[in-house]
Amino acid sequence: MKLEYTVFGESHGPAVGVVVENLPSGVPIDPDFISREMNRRRAKGDGLSTPRVEADAPKILSGVFEGKTTGTPLCAIIQNGNTRSADYDRTKNLARPSHADFTGFVRYQGYNDYRGGGHFSGRLTAPLVFAGAVAKLALRERGIFVGAHILQLGSQKDVPFSPTTLTQNAFETLAEKDFTVLDDEAGERMKALVQEARMNLTSVGGIIQCAVIGMPCGVGSPDKDNLEGIIARNIFRVPAVKGIEFGLGFGFASAYGHEVNDQMRMDNGRVVTETNYNGGILGGISNGMPIVFQVVIKPTSSISREQKTVDLATMQDSTLVVKGRHDPCILSRASVVVESATALSVLEALS
Amino acid sequence: MKLEYTVFGESHGPAVGVVVENLPSGVPIDPDFISREMNRRRAKGDGLSTPRVEADAPKILSGVFEGKTTGTPLCAIIQNGNTRSADYDRTKNLARPSHADFTGFVRYQGYNDYRGGGHFSGRLTAPLVFAGAVAKLALRERGIFVGAHILQLGSQKDVPFSPTTLTQNAFETLAEKDFTVLDDEAGERMKALVQEARMNLTSVGGIIQCAVIGMPCGVGSPDKDNLEGIIARNIFRVPAVKGIEFGLGFGFASAYGHEVNDQMRMDNGRVVTETNYNGGILGGISNGMPIVFQVVIKPTSSISREQKTVDLATMQDSTLVVKGRHDPCILSRASVVVESATALSVLEALS
Amino acid sequence: MKLEYTVFGESHGPAVGVVVENLPSGVPIDPDFISREMNRRRAKGDGLSTPRVEADAPKILSGVFEGKTTGTPLCAIIQNGNTRSADYDRTKNLARPSHADFTGFVRYQGYNDYRGGGHFSGRLTAPLVFAGAVAKLALRERGIFVGAHILQLGSQKDVPFSPTTLTQNAFETLAEKDFTVLDDEAGERMKALVQEARMNLTSVGGIIQCAVIGMPCGVGSPDKDNLEGIIARNIFRVPAVKGIEFGLGFGFASAYGHEVNDQMRMDNGRVVTETNYNGGILGGISNGMPIVFQVVIKPTSSISREQKTVDLATMQDSTLVVKGRHDPCILSRASVVVESATALSVLEALS
Amino acid sequence: MKLEYTVFGESHGPAVGVVVENLPSGVPIDPDFISREMNRRRAKGDGLSTPRVEADAPKILSGVFEGKTTGTPLCAIIQNGNTRSADYDRTKNLARPSHADFTGFVRYQGYNDYRGGGHFSGRLTAPLVFAGAVAKLALRERGIFVGAHILQLGSQKDVPFSPTTLTQNAFETLAEKDFTVLDDEAGERMKALVQEARMNLTSVGGIIQCAVIGMPCGVGSPDKDNLEGIIARNIFRVPAVKGIEFGLGFGFASAYGHEVNDQMRMDNGRVVTETNYNGGILGGISNGMPIVFQVVIKPTSSISREQKTVDLATMQDSTLVVKGRHDPCILSRASVVVESATALSVLEALS
Repeated sequence: MKLEYTVFGESHGPAVGVVVENLPSGVPIDPDFISREMNRRRAKGDGLSTPRVEADAPKILSGVFEGKTTGTPLCAIIQNGNTRSADYDRTKNLARPSHADFTGFVRYQGYNDYRGGGHFSGRLTAPLVFAGAVAKLALRERGIFVGAHILQLGSQKDVPFSPTTLTQNAFETLAEKDFTVLDDEAGERMKALVQEARMNLTSVGGIIQCAVIGMPCGVGSPDKDNLEGIIARNIFRVPAVKGIEFGLGFGFASAYGHEVNDQMRMDNGRVVTETNYNGGILGGISNGMPIVFQVVIKPTSSISREQKTVDLATMQDSTLVVKGRHDPCILSRASVVVESATALSVLEALS
Repeated sequence: MKLEYTVFGESHGPAVGVVVENLPSGVPIDPDFISREMNRRRAKGDGLSTPRVEADAPKILSGVFEGKTTGTPLCAIIQNGNTRSADYDRTKNLARPSHADFTGFVRYQGYNDYRGGGHFSGRLTAPLVFAGAVAKLALRERGIFVGAHILQLGSQKDVPFSPTTLTQNAFETLAEKDFTVLDDEAGERMKALVQEARMNLTSVGGIIQCAVIGMPCGVGSPDKDNLEGIIARNIFRVPAVKGIEFGLGFGFASAYGHEVNDQMRMDNGRVVTETNYNGGILGGISNGMPIVFQVVIKPTSSISREQKTVDLATMQDSTLVVKGRHDPCILSRASVVVESATALSVLEALS
Repeated sequence: MKLEYTVFGESHGPAVGVVVENLPSGVPIDPDFISREMNRRRAKGDGLSTPRVEADAPKILSGVFEGKTTGTPLCAIIQNGNTRSADYDRTKNLARPSHADFTGFVRYQGYNDYRGGGHFSGRLTAPLVFAGAVAKLALRERGIFVGAHILQLGSQKDVPFSPTTLTQNAFETLAEKDFTVLDDEAGERMKALVQEARMNLTSVGGIIQCAVIGMPCGVGSPDKDNLEGIIARNIFRVPAVKGIEFGLGFGFASAYGHEVNDQMRMDNGRVVTETNYNGGILGGISNGMPIVFQVVIKPTSSISREQKTVDLATMQDSTLVVKGRHDPCILSRASVVVESATALSVLEALS
Repeated sequence: MKLEYTVFGESHGPAVGVVVENLPSGVPIDPDFISREMNRRRAKGDGLSTPRVEADAPKILSGVFEGKTTGTPLCAIIQNGNTRSADYDRTKNLARPSHADFTGFVRYQGYNDYRGGGHFSGRLTAPLVFAGAVAKLALRERGIFVGAHILQLGSQKDVPFSPTTLTQNAFETLAEKDFTVLDDEAGERMKALVQEARMNLTSVGGIIQCAVIGMPCGVGSPDKDNLEGIIARNIFRVPAVKGIEFGLGFGFASAYGHEVNDQMRMDNGRVVTETNYNGGILGGISNGMPIVFQVVIKPTSSISREQKTVDLATMQDSTLVVKGRHDPCILSRASVVVESATALSVLEALS
């Protein structure tokens, strides 16, 4: 039965949370692992992200018994606290450019909770990370692991994953880092770039590269259950994502077939490819190589510069300088979020 | 009720086809329009694509009465003919590198129809284009139009769509062209590049840019019915697609927020954005601007050079030189295919 | 976008709850109405139902802002309290005959929370009633109302709804009653029958008749979105339901066509039927007449007589006398539960 | 991945057919078995059913290769022939009472194909039986078998299945009969009753009892994938069905718990129940006993007596005497149809 997850909550409501249906039964809920994952997403108050620091301890309400998943719907919630709604009241009718303020207003006919972005807030990624942590624990039982790093932040680039020789160790090392890059010097340059953006009252985007190892061959479908499609659909549910590419991705546009076909051979009784330009998926089905893909995250839309906008109450032109606590860059927190949506997608494809 | 489509068939089976559920009732089926669309996808035998030229006349079996959609499931089939299965028999156990031969074999436990790629064949895009044509006719009734062009083919680039001033006329002009580019000189360079690839026994990839105009504001959701997610999931069902990006897409990675936020203003009582870097979607919901996105298509995997592969019958290393009729580049046929998956996605989001 | 609801929780876990996706925006959440509905389901401690009486005040965590639904996922939870898990520990491995103890054990590989029936507990109907109350508020905005009564309890029968002349008033009167029957004398006989069953250490079943008025014509489909199918699927998610029939239902088996065809005529510009043997649905689509159906509820399986069973720990034959607090009959609480699943189904069909 | 089926076509269109997604791979397509199943549904021209006798040979278009299912979408069609549309033109605007003529007209805004009932025709059960036959072949590989008989026809009753001792042999014997009853003398009385109904220009209903043996324990869920719910949803997609009950069904209403609880014991290492009042399902999950349920089929609505109706073109009162070829009773053809929807449901639950 198909795994599905539903994230609920609003930034300034009582709580945010998630329900996950059709998890496997008997998965041990490792609280240390979940804490670590939640901590990876948490704003550090280190100048790189929003000063809104919260405890973010998820409370499991259902679906876990004696430390293991039951298989019935698992619900966990995270209380909201430390909200400063007043920051938003002053500008509640002024839609932030490039934010969902306007589209949410239209979609929900003005009934949406506008405070702190409401249901569109990045805060909703906290329960997603919790659900992703549970999914990773379930995948771990099958020898499947998920990892991600910041491949690019503004003009600065990390070294890419090696798509044929990825190991669980590499993921562990990344997960322990405060700033998830393979090349720490590139990481320092990225951090400097974020600080510079903050000084300039602007924000900056980047690319997360994510990978899955241990994936069995033959999972997915060319049709509705296309593995690339399942992952993409869930990745686009992450706020600020504007694109996804598998393997060489947009690099295929200027490539010739003979350069990028992944030639095959036997390796200890297993079919492997010598290169992995296709990122582990062919015809919507896993081929047993690491799944590798890139996700682009746009610059945070909430910046403290004057921008032209529209007053949704009067439908008049206006201008806006966004106040409140906002990340100039969410890349440092996005790796674990992308990993989480990926882990849930892979478990869905396997379910 | 939610529109869904299912494409069925194998390249060398009796027929390929499609069923579309929950179409609107009363949509006039314009046979000339459908012919034009089918013709746009058809191989021209002009050296740019496979010499397998077929009539591809879809036969409607259900869901249309007195020239209009009924709203009950619409099925159309296209007979297969002109198949040369013998081309494939000789190499049936040799998986083509970067093709779904191997993953399909594993997924379907060796029971898949391997001839001509079977269910993974590009031939399956013919019924998709038919279904897309019907979807376009339904969207036309609501003032919504879909168009696409080859933005890039190998190293050659077309001029991009202007994301704020797109018109239906531009789409009409493109649809009439044999080679869907805005800049015909760029088109000639692309064609030359394809011929060169053919001579070199290789293939080449590219990028399709697709747009939707007339889209009402407020369609989609940040959650499971995310508009970017719906489009992405269906686009990945198109063979050879390896990535999708909306608006500026991967360009957001090196951009600053103040440069790429789409500032807003009123225009004749309607909210518009001055730029459209977000490609018409914010928070998974349409904002009323043109939806613009890019799709990368990898080089055709079937090339006539010797490649290392594996014999699926013996599970031994082997080599393969692909014979048979194969496009060195499918970009010239891909515009209408991407448009079709898009039209069906938009109609799904509206259903 | 399709309304869906997910009920979560276990009887003796921290909380039970529900998430409802794709509710309409702007539905006023009337707390008095919700209280009344919750109260209708609540055990009264009157000897007719379980002595476990709880406050059952649902706490809304998301999806409501300034007293109205936002349209984003609505989550509400009800804390569990007053649990006496010890009642269950003594017999935890002894599967109650005709209960889901055994099937849940197998389905969830022994990882299910067995205490108090866990996820299979009737306690899970509390959040269902909350969600149903919200759905009723949304339907009320469209002039659609749902009501139910106990048509039969053991050998005692209430008068049936008149399927052509049902009014909202009838529903209001029923909802105010402690014991939802049209004929209060029949109600007294039913109560006596329940007390007798309790004395005899047994339990008794019955039939709930449910109706929907104000339903527009043309909702549903002969196919996957069949209106009878949507209602049936959700009704079977209610514990202890073993059958559903629309209109004359199983009475059709011994009827002749000319007796039970619903003849038609115009009435104030509207098509009506003179009888309503079909219960308001033809070909899976509403015909504008009241929707009327019956649901059979089996006798509570937990009875305090010795029964043969199996010890799931040792897989040996055993016997069981169920202890703990159990309703001898859940019919008095089932009307509002059936109404709730119905209201959610109708809103789903309309979404 | 979830099995789904879509039936398409209209009674007087070019063809009817079905697409089945996510079938298991490698299921041998036994043409004799499929013929037998199709033949069981076919009108015999024996006075018991419509004189419209057709060849009904399904043509497989996809999803089968070298005699086995591939696992990709399987489409089969059945050409329509022997249609006498003129029968319908004369009365096209007169909605048949208790038929979907009126609801279909509203649902599809008058664009539905009204000829012969169009998409609502019993003709659509032919491709359903084909799909069901394929599902039965897939279930057979797992030792699961489905059978059905006419439990009641008007006032005449067959003996019921023994819910604890059902065998595959019983199903085989039934499938070979022209008239699927266990007690052939009851069958003769039923046939006489149908002839009498025909003479009286009326029609008659009945009950099909269906069973599944070999079902593994633990399949289903108390939630969205409730096994009773899955079966019910698909059974209501069969035309003329007005109710479904599992096991004792509506008989539970007047039963006491101690009478109808299914006590349990070990039997050769397997948990069995001594009785099977619950029809093999508890808490929405199979318990390993035979699944047994009853489906009520209403009398055919098309009768040749004058009935009051409405003219859909003028929205005026009118009267109608239905002409054309119609079954006075569809029970003799319904057993295999109910079995088919059941086989597909069980395979869905297992997928």
